[in-house]
Amino acid sequence: MYDGAIQNLIDHFARLPGIGPKSAQRIVFWMLDQSAEDVAEFSAALTQFKAEVHFCQVCFSACEGDICRICADERRDHSVICVVEESKDVFAIERTREFRGRYHVLGGHLSPIDGSGPENLHLRELMSRLAVEPVTEIIIATNPNVNGDATCAYITRLLRPFADIKVSRLASGLPVGGDLEYADEVTLGRAFSGRTAL
Amino acid sequence: MYDGAIQNLIDHFARLPGIGPKSAQRIVFWMLDQSAEDVAEFSAALTQFKAEVHFCQVCFSACEGDICRICADERRDHSVICVVEESKDVFAIERTREFRGRYHVLGGHLSPIDGSGPENLHLRELMSRLAVEPVTEIIIATNPNVNGDATCAYITRLLRPFADIKVSRLASGLPVGGDLEYADEVTLGRAFSGRTAL
Repeated sequence: MYDGAIQNLIDHFARLPGIGPKSAQRIVFWMLDQSAEDVAEFSAALTQFKAEVHFCQVCFSACEGDICRICADERRDHSVICVVEESKDVFAIERTREFRGRYHVLGGHLSPIDGSGPENLHLRELMSRLAVEPVTEIIIATNPNVNGDATCAYITRLLRPFADIKVSRLASGLPVGGDLEYADEVTLGRAFSGRTAL
Repeated sequence: MYDGAIQNLIDHFARLPGIGPKSAQRIVFWMLDQSAEDVAEFSAALTQFKAEVHFCQVCFSACEGDICRICADERRDHSVICVVEESKDVFAIERTREFRGRYHVLGGHLSPIDGSGPENLHLRELMSRLAVEPVTEIIIATNPNVNGDATCAYITRLLRPFADIKVSRLASGLPVGGDLEYADEVTLGRAFSGRTAL
């Protein structure tokens, strides 16, 4: 429909998650009015992103360089590892400022339907870390859904031989500021079974 | 919050129309899993877009090269010009396959609030075209809203000296497939005043 370079850019934008063909078209026509420098900077940001951002060799979270800032920070607690599915979960937890230990990014979750098995996750690397690092506690922070539950169960079984390591999972329950009335049954059920003594 | 290159790319995406910081973050973390080639192609598509896409020297619609395909097409009717606000309107009208004339893109609309006056639109160029092209009809296809109405009124006044040129505007009324019950009053009012004889 459109000329080559226009349609090509629309196709690229339409491939991004959460952007359909209409939004892609809107973005591209908006770009027409942007200065050449702005677009060149955007293009350079993409290239630079792919060139500079790698996965940390210790915890596999996205970072610049070989080791991420958290793994390189000596003040972080080396005895606690929080296991998450994706890099973005690390940043979400960091924003809470509640956790002072270190992370391990699995790079996904177990999902037989999508053909993602344990071999696709950084589980062997987690085991290697347990052999060399003075870990006493592992907090499993996979998502509170079917795949996250399955992944959590699998890791728990893997960690059973390490009797001296405390394994826990993030609490599931009512979100703060939420309304009991609008909570779904599963969440409310979990809030009951995980109730805390006062 | 994030490392430099990650945050930089998130900022670039968040600046796009219709994309907020959360969507931008989602896109950037999705990009982490894409191959270096795919990201390089995206980056190249941006550069190429800005390098190759210009505005047609005749009608000011976005195209590759100096003259757009429509202006270069000798089979198009040279006696009718359809005046639109933006390049994307050209493509929208082309999709209908109802119009065989040529276009003139204003590059915006009159909007005193945004400080966009007649000098910001390609109106002088429209007048120049009328001097050299054998135009007998002008169809004003600005958007059916306040700014589009104002722009249409201004152009109509500009064209008054050209007594031999027929000036018309796209019909406003009920959208096809719509429900009378859900039409707003203004649209329904326009449908009445613009009713067609059977």
